[in-house]
Amino acid sequence: MSQRDIQIDEAGNLVHFLTLEGLSRPTLVGILDLAESFVGFEAREIKKVPLLRGKTVVNLFFEPSTRTRTTFEIAAKRLSADVINMNPARMSTSKGETVLDTVRNLEAMHTDMFVVRHEFSGTAYLIACHVPPHIRIINAGDGRHAHPTQAMLDMFTIRQHKPDFANLSVAIVGDILHSRVARSQIHALNTLGVPDIRVIAPMTLLPTEVERLGVRAYTDMASGLDDVDVIVMLRLQMERMRGQLIPSEQAFFRCYGLTEDKLQQAKTDAVVMHPGPINRGLEIASSVADGPQSLILPQVTNGIAVRMAIMAQLMGGAGRKEAA
Amino acid sequence: MSQRDIQIDEAGNLVHFLTLEGLSRPTLVGILDLAESFVGFEAREIKKVPLLRGKTVVNLFFEPSTRTRTTFEIAAKRLSADVINMNPARMSTSKGETVLDTVRNLEAMHTDMFVVRHEFSGTAYLIACHVPPHIRIINAGDGRHAHPTQAMLDMFTIRQHKPDFANLSVAIVGDILHSRVARSQIHALNTLGVPDIRVIAPMTLLPTEVERLGVRAYTDMASGLDDVDVIVMLRLQMERMRGQLIPSEQAFFRCYGLTEDKLQQAKTDAVVMHPGPINRGLEIASSVADGPQSLILPQVTNGIAVRMAIMAQLMGGAGRKEAA
Amino acid sequence: MSQRDIQIDEAGNLVHFLTLEGLSRPTLVGILDLAESFVGFEAREIKKVPLLRGKTVVNLFFEPSTRTRTTFEIAAKRLSADVINMNPARMSTSKGETVLDTVRNLEAMHTDMFVVRHEFSGTAYLIACHVPPHIRIINAGDGRHAHPTQAMLDMFTIRQHKPDFANLSVAIVGDILHSRVARSQIHALNTLGVPDIRVIAPMTLLPTEVERLGVRAYTDMASGLDDVDVIVMLRLQMERMRGQLIPSEQAFFRCYGLTEDKLQQAKTDAVVMHPGPINRGLEIASSVADGPQSLILPQVTNGIAVRMAIMAQLMGGAGRKEAA
Repeated sequence: MSQRDIQIDEAGNLVHFLTLEGLSRPTLVGILDLAESFVGFEAREIKKVPLLRGKTVVNLFFEPSTRTRTTFEIAAKRLSADVINMNPARMSTSKGETVLDTVRNLEAMHTDMFVVRHEFSGTAYLIACHVPPHIRIINAGDGRHAHPTQAMLDMFTIRQHKPDFANLSVAIVGDILHSRVARSQIHALNTLGVPDIRVIAPMTLLPTEVERLGVRAYTDMASGLDDVDVIVMLRLQMERMRGQLIPSEQAFFRCYGLTEDKLQQAKTDAVVMHPGPINRGLEIASSVADGPQSLILPQVTNGIAVRMAIMAQLMGGAGRKEAA
Repeated sequence: MSQRDIQIDEAGNLVHFLTLEGLSRPTLVGILDLAESFVGFEAREIKKVPLLRGKTVVNLFFEPSTRTRTTFEIAAKRLSADVINMNPARMSTSKGETVLDTVRNLEAMHTDMFVVRHEFSGTAYLIACHVPPHIRIINAGDGRHAHPTQAMLDMFTIRQHKPDFANLSVAIVGDILHSRVARSQIHALNTLGVPDIRVIAPMTLLPTEVERLGVRAYTDMASGLDDVDVIVMLRLQMERMRGQLIPSEQAFFRCYGLTEDKLQQAKTDAVVMHPGPINRGLEIASSVADGPQSLILPQVTNGIAVRMAIMAQLMGGAGRKEAA
Repeated sequence: MSQRDIQIDEAGNLVHFLTLEGLSRPTLVGILDLAESFVGFEAREIKKVPLLRGKTVVNLFFEPSTRTRTTFEIAAKRLSADVINMNPARMSTSKGETVLDTVRNLEAMHTDMFVVRHEFSGTAYLIACHVPPHIRIINAGDGRHAHPTQAMLDMFTIRQHKPDFANLSVAIVGDILHSRVARSQIHALNTLGVPDIRVIAPMTLLPTEVERLGVRAYTDMASGLDDVDVIVMLRLQMERMRGQLIPSEQAFFRCYGLTEDKLQQAKTDAVVMHPGPINRGLEIASSVADGPQSLILPQVTNGIAVRMAIMAQLMGGAGRKEAA
């Protein structure tokens, strides 16, 4: 059974959120619409809804994270769930227990949802294959494979500013090779009908046969950014680079760092995005990151609403109905 | 004053939970019965009761733990308590503060219950001796001494499957010498009237004069497991073994690891338990751990209900009445 | 704009709590009075008020802390806020993100209040300069600069026992040079009208021109403690001492450690305070720390009520009205 199959049950309901591959356009649009309803709510005086009251959400982060873990924790608490943060550094895995044994123990505690991040591709899927039917798994990033909630918040942010996916040019720039974010974004953009998706990177940071994913590949910014509506900068993941994939940070910034100058290539109303945390002066100039075209902080804000929507959707209730 | 005395107040109420030594059979049965009422509740849509609403429970784990800390946190939250997790790695004890000063500070914050784990035997007792009367202490494991909530959840699990303690043969297998779990289990089994309690281990892992605890000692599995109803495997605590107490892991597994083959010695409907985390292929074969006679995961599930019962019992209220 | 200006808005409301410099006596007294109302409340069966319900408080501790972090967490939860603890050891700052980028991300998550501790003076101020108007910043200690909530709980504790600030002699003893606590206490005592404020320390631990802060400096305990009403002992911050500022711990204790003997110099009803964690036998003898004149644990208790008051005050609502 593939990841596509396991996340939809026989009645067609979304039961896990592991990858965007295989999810239909109505499913993605349904999540975006549901998230929309939580955005207004965000500004209210009391930011709580009882959709997950009495439910226990476990943040199971084998890899460290600030913003993703925190936004999931905030999203779950705003849905009135109890949140348990697992500290991998001291988990029983360090006593020789396998990931699946850890998970079996957590499910035996009658918890309801696991938000999983792991350095190995496929961990969230592996877990989803082994949990009983009432437990929901959300992939918060697995190796180089996928980061579907990030891609959904990016789609949400794009739609806020460029509502018509069918008329967009989107360029994703930087370390495509190691980026689970890019992979998930490409799936989402294709599913939502974006006709022109580009990736821009040095040859060493492009996957082989990347065009098969439904994108056009560029190795220079001038032509890659030409006339695009949306520029998505990726974090240069120094910690994942084994060997010398870039000559130097300075050289990388000179060629692929987004500066005000390079930004001129795009449409004048183009927007700039980045999943964070940003490396100022490495993949993006501060003047652009903090400039008027930047949506970097709105992305973070939208992350809460989008994650609330995905959690609500998976747990059924209001979410499912509205998004059906 | 002994640990037995300090945990019962003058009116006969349980006020701390430090050790099972000295607790009467009605007290233990009362906790098991109260836990029973929380098991049904576990399956409800909203898993919350307000018994500890407005109370603050502090998880004070000087030793790392996944499942015990997490089950206490979940149990406390399902009772509607606020939970504070103390991170020993950064606690003031590292600035030279004593454990008792740390505890005095926590009690000065008007907290209500401390769940304490420490590598030194007697720490929970020491703390209980020094807190004011309204504060409750639960021992979540102290050195080699006791782990009474684990033993209670084990008794609960046994009773679910073998309701008549007066007709049971129970074998505890493995590292008896270092096991606080075994010590607490032996007290519980004796108090509940189990007539045949056995411990099975190599000589190097048996305490001297272990029979004084009210058990029979065996050094070989074949005779030790003969016709028993319940097999409790212990974790081989490699981290506590100073010096060479076992020849090798392979040799240990060959002699004392629970395999399907050795399991044949027990009654055909015997059940297998383990406090976790399990070392697959060291003290237990995967086929047994995951097999039909294994209760390892039900033990974890029962851990929540049993800990809710103990917390509710100590804080008085509904718990006390139902269990009286 | 100075720290004084940024923490009061145009309508005269307190919007951040960064330093006591520049706060008026009515403002400080208003906080103490509001805290008073939470003290009775502390003893209630259910210790919750809904003043911060639906609000998200982020504990942003770049420096480790037990008691301060925990009291803020407890205070926030008793006000019904959601609390997010950020673990600096794994924060994105370790991935090269700046403190301000971390903060911008947190504010983008629609959080409402940051409680900030950092080893660098001015960090809380820096953050307050950059957050949007609806976010509140509380300084929980910045370098050597200030620790205003600690000073407020100290004032509260003094007032409980010596209600007339206008007739007090207060001596602050120990490592004045490195103490953000001492600096904040001196501001508070001056503002509240204490006529006789003394600091006692070896020359090496006195700031140059310390008298400019409005205190009298002493280098010997006998004259410094003569006839005082309140003795505030400071923690000897061994971890902040670069170079040899004291000859030895033994010598320091002999000269400046508070013993029963030296305590005789003060008034017979003098009270003894210490922000904790205490170094027994270094700056204070156990017999004094645990003795009848010690208010060290009441200080911790009062810390909850005072921090609740400051949080409630900053968020407006009941707090503001009562304290106006």
